[in-house]
Amino acid sequence: MAAFVHFLGFCFLGLLVAVPWGAIAADEDPLQDVCVADPNAQVKVNGFVCKAMPNASDFVSPLLRKAGSTNNKLGSSVTAAGAANFPGLNTQGLSFARIDYAPGGVVPPHNHPRASEVLFVVAGTLRVGFVSSDGNSTLFTNTLYPGDLTVFPRGLVHFIINVGDSQAFSLSGLDSQNPGASLLPTVLFASNPTIGDDVLGKAFNLPQKEIDMIKAALKG
Amino acid sequence: MAAFVHFLGFCFLGLLVAVPWGAIAADEDPLQDVCVADPNAQVKVNGFVCKAMPNASDFVSPLLRKAGSTNNKLGSSVTAAGAANFPGLNTQGLSFARIDYAPGGVVPPHNHPRASEVLFVVAGTLRVGFVSSDGNSTLFTNTLYPGDLTVFPRGLVHFIINVGDSQAFSLSGLDSQNPGASLLPTVLFASNPTIGDDVLGKAFNLPQKEIDMIKAALKG
Amino acid sequence: MAAFVHFLGFCFLGLLVAVPWGAIAADEDPLQDVCVADPNAQVKVNGFVCKAMPNASDFVSPLLRKAGSTNNKLGSSVTAAGAANFPGLNTQGLSFARIDYAPGGVVPPHNHPRASEVLFVVAGTLRVGFVSSDGNSTLFTNTLYPGDLTVFPRGLVHFIINVGDSQAFSLSGLDSQNPGASLLPTVLFASNPTIGDDVLGKAFNLPQKEIDMIKAALKG
Amino acid sequence: MAAFVHFLGFCFLGLLVAVPWGAIAADEDPLQDVCVADPNAQVKVNGFVCKAMPNASDFVSPLLRKAGSTNNKLGSSVTAAGAANFPGLNTQGLSFARIDYAPGGVVPPHNHPRASEVLFVVAGTLRVGFVSSDGNSTLFTNTLYPGDLTVFPRGLVHFIINVGDSQAFSLSGLDSQNPGASLLPTVLFASNPTIGDDVLGKAFNLPQKEIDMIKAALKG
Amino acid sequence: MAAFVHFLGFCFLGLLVAVPWGAIAADEDPLQDVCVADPNAQVKVNGFVCKAMPNASDFVSPLLRKAGSTNNKLGSSVTAAGAANFPGLNTQGLSFARIDYAPGGVVPPHNHPRASEVLFVVAGTLRVGFVSSDGNSTLFTNTLYPGDLTVFPRGLVHFIINVGDSQAFSLSGLDSQNPGASLLPTVLFASNPTIGDDVLGKAFNLPQKEIDMIKAALKG
Amino acid sequence: MAAFVHFLGFCFLGLLVAVPWGAIAADEDPLQDVCVADPNAQVKVNGFVCKAMPNASDFVSPLLRKAGSTNNKLGSSVTAAGAANFPGLNTQGLSFARIDYAPGGVVPPHNHPRASEVLFVVAGTLRVGFVSSDGNSTLFTNTLYPGDLTVFPRGLVHFIINVGDSQAFSLSGLDSQNPGASLLPTVLFASNPTIGDDVLGKAFNLPQKEIDMIKAALKG
Repeated sequence: MAAFVHFLGFCFLGLLVAVPWGAIAADEDPLQDVCVADPNAQVKVNGFVCKAMPNASDFVSPLLRKAGSTNNKLGSSVTAAGAANFPGLNTQGLSFARIDYAPGGVVPPHNHPRASEVLFVVAGTLRVGFVSSDGNSTLFTNTLYPGDLTVFPRGLVHFIINVGDSQAFSLSGLDSQNPGASLLPTVLFASNPTIGDDVLGKAFNLPQKEIDMIKAALKG
Repeated sequence: MAAFVHFLGFCFLGLLVAVPWGAIAADEDPLQDVCVADPNAQVKVNGFVCKAMPNASDFVSPLLRKAGSTNNKLGSSVTAAGAANFPGLNTQGLSFARIDYAPGGVVPPHNHPRASEVLFVVAGTLRVGFVSSDGNSTLFTNTLYPGDLTVFPRGLVHFIINVGDSQAFSLSGLDSQNPGASLLPTVLFASNPTIGDDVLGKAFNLPQKEIDMIKAALKG
Repeated sequence: MAAFVHFLGFCFLGLLVAVPWGAIAADEDPLQDVCVADPNAQVKVNGFVCKAMPNASDFVSPLLRKAGSTNNKLGSSVTAAGAANFPGLNTQGLSFARIDYAPGGVVPPHNHPRASEVLFVVAGTLRVGFVSSDGNSTLFTNTLYPGDLTVFPRGLVHFIINVGDSQAFSLSGLDSQNPGASLLPTVLFASNPTIGDDVLGKAFNLPQKEIDMIKAALKG
Repeated sequence: MAAFVHFLGFCFLGLLVAVPWGAIAADEDPLQDVCVADPNAQVKVNGFVCKAMPNASDFVSPLLRKAGSTNNKLGSSVTAAGAANFPGLNTQGLSFARIDYAPGGVVPPHNHPRASEVLFVVAGTLRVGFVSSDGNSTLFTNTLYPGDLTVFPRGLVHFIINVGDSQAFSLSGLDSQNPGASLLPTVLFASNPTIGDDVLGKAFNLPQKEIDMIKAALKG
Repeated sequence: MAAFVHFLGFCFLGLLVAVPWGAIAADEDPLQDVCVADPNAQVKVNGFVCKAMPNASDFVSPLLRKAGSTNNKLGSSVTAAGAANFPGLNTQGLSFARIDYAPGGVVPPHNHPRASEVLFVVAGTLRVGFVSSDGNSTLFTNTLYPGDLTVFPRGLVHFIINVGDSQAFSLSGLDSQNPGASLLPTVLFASNPTIGDDVLGKAFNLPQKEIDMIKAALKG
Repeated sequence: MAAFVHFLGFCFLGLLVAVPWGAIAADEDPLQDVCVADPNAQVKVNGFVCKAMPNASDFVSPLLRKAGSTNNKLGSSVTAAGAANFPGLNTQGLSFARIDYAPGGVVPPHNHPRASEVLFVVAGTLRVGFVSSDGNSTLFTNTLYPGDLTVFPRGLVHFIINVGDSQAFSLSGLDSQNPGASLLPTVLFASNPTIGDDVLGKAFNLPQKEIDMIKAALKG
């Protein structure tokens, strides 16, 4: 099912936010020079089956050439290249993404189940943060300027906001050919089908009508 | 800092829910028979420094003998044993946990950043679910009876609810000596310090007062 | 060949002791959310080929619901769930097992070539032990009571005996989707075909008739 | 020895070309949320010892803010951030680098012994290539334009040249916290001490004076 | 404790058979060029702490120069080089061993808990075999002549016997810097302390006096 | 393409130097006892598809029985056994090679992109060396005598020369089933097609005619 390959549609609140990824994360090691993903393979394996004959064009991708539109409620757009849409990445343990941000634009809290991420600010001023999973829920937060790097540890929840006055742009490397992304507002309140209100009500200590309100707001 | 070692205080809504974990997931391989974590070591490494002389008692732990109290708002209690509190697990790639549930008790949506989890139902009827990270946010949900097994894939958001009329009890194995746990209601709305309201408001498409309401409800 | 998939027939001394496993051990990392093993695949790979469309029922298994019969010479029964018989475990790096014991029942010395194991005592009193592989053959042994945890390091020889007066029951997590199990009395004296008597005689410093006697005893 | 930590001085032909790296490749998995490298640790381990208390500033780095000078014989400058100079990357399996190029500037053929690399063109027109290690020495080459991505498979020899008329700039993610870089002209003809002329003469099928000439040219 | 470092004393039947090993298996990845084990380190970690300054002599070892004496009951001698006695191997994922055999000499059934092994016959005629861990206990056996290679899969029980008329000699590579070796006759019947007779009696279906007889024979 | 499977043709300067390899390097872990490579499989994966039924002869190989001819310009011959030509090695994380040397024979500087290597001298006197990738290009060099072991760290450039008066012979284990080998004179100056002279000229600081001279010498 394509859904499991293109891990990050990032379709949020009905807004176009992303294309399939390409981040990286602690993947298994390659067992040959290259194993270009075969888009037509009938057989599915952990990762992808290799095409019979690689050629040079398999190792270049224009996927990140254009900024995504930030004319949406979040004011952000994630465009990603992973093994599913850039087949030359298969078995190489890496993916890459660009994020474009309108002023005030947000990438909602999310985690990558299979990767750490290093983010580089090309333009703009970004506030970023991640939260520890050690029981203390410590938030580590920084404000980044053009040329700054930051890191989001493997699997931890993190977010980004453009706190500057102009359009911003960042680039990320991730250590998995298919890092995945769980966008938490969507995962919690707009999954398919939705998580039961009994679970959400108790988890958030909220009455039914408030849960309904949150769900409605997300649908926009 | 102990906080990064004891990854899962699981202190939720001011209720005591858990003790430090001990599950494991996809960890590095051991390079000797045993490397018992040294609780007094000054030096911190990836995992733990080994104590000088292991003995048999390092490889047994009573941490999971007693059910945790479920007399709290969630109606659940997670008790976990990982390399931090069961030192014999260090380098062995595994941890283990028990969960006790009152009728209607819930383990809120959370993820383990470094582990998959296999859960076995000892007693009770549990509904469980996990959500894909592939952009579709597909919810896979099942109802489990005593003796049933289920699996939560690495890093994905999952939850558990006791849908039976009596106390329930489950046991889990995780493939990391320190899987971590990001309890999402807490991570999102009650981290230390909290994620900015600008981020949360845009991420959930909610006005400030609604964000304030969710935060207040979590504080109970 | 199914034999290499179902790693633990655990058919010992002509007694039915086990069903295929599901333990876990330091497996490669997953490259997508899920890759449910396809039982009908013609193609064999390291692990299993993924089925085309996963559904929720792939992630639940009743394999461990019932205690195995302990009415056999060993007085024990191992029932295991791994990727071969619980396809949702494929790529998740974990398996799980239950063991039932009559009073005095024994799980003979064995090792898992691809996994560490964490064992939890649900009921009964068990004596367990493992032996180091460092040239000293140090035995680490403990007596466990209900609620106790122990760990058997990766690949090391270990055993379990019910030293209490009543039926016992334990649960184990292993860090491989297919840990394998080499039951040493069988592997040494009842393999198919058997190891040559020249090897066994010299290895155990025993004359032919004693080797014959040991083999005959195992056949029961 | 700092030399083994700062893997990529990239001092080539007596020209300052680079600062210490920080890329990552197929590293071991993290066993806790974070393990910030401790620059003052006496103890050396695989990777780095963790500092006692991480804080937010450990996870941000300005190392790549400024373009390196390309006023050197190669016409290029590699600036890299790895766990040695950006301590928050320790255990996260990743590093990142910027490369600046004058028109005609070259990054000489080199390999990273512990990482694959994904490269994104920020500005300029670059020709890149890598050579297979399968006995055929197949060269895969591409010309890249702004916004294009390419991948250099783990451990393979690759190069980059600015074939445009203006200054160029690229960013790379690598899947190791310390990928290393073997700059081949330097490694072959200007190591410390140098590889014997008997080896080089036979390997290149060249007389002594030609080997001397190549060495002299590299020294500039 | 040195015992856990020198994994393979291989002291069998009171005969000196071996020196500490050095094979390797599926170890974690290196995070720098070299990390030579420091024999004087107070701190113990997974593997070994690195010495401050490596030098060329750290990467050469004469340990396997001389054949071990085969004038013992087994008629064999294993001499091994791993990270504990050849410090340059630390973090490199490999060890190496030589075995010398008198005519009829045997390496008893054993397994390496952390490594696969490739064996090359330098001189002599060897019969080798390994037994599957899949519940069928299938024996795969071959007779090898000078120049032949064979492989023993990770963690599986295997043995070697010199079936020729003259002294034999083999060399092995293993994919761990410390593969360990569980010599099964010793582990089962001569560990320190010994496995209880209740366990052995039931496991082998033998009365006490036969267990006593086997133990006595091993002591020689 | 067979080229990517047989990683080390080692055809150098038009001289026959090698057969396909079999070294070893930090590969992914096996998920079953054995997975013998199927030479007839249509499907290509990371590593190889498993044949349906393994048998004993899959685990033995005569590939290294005979010395390769050293009657060539390099005076050396590498003969290797990896998963591509010794199918039983598939998933076992190891390969093995023999090298034969005429007096003065050289194995040119090369690296294995996916493996460390341990080399044992069977006969002769060899000078070996490897160069660090840390920016210092430190050469570590040793002279080896019969019975000596050395190690070449993962991915680093290394070379061997027979400095004795007689034929020499060595054996190597590598920790990958397909380590690959980049023979640097060939990779740099005789790839298919060749690296552009613009790149080589600037990288080596040499005029066109000198680059032409080096290329011509390699062609012999």
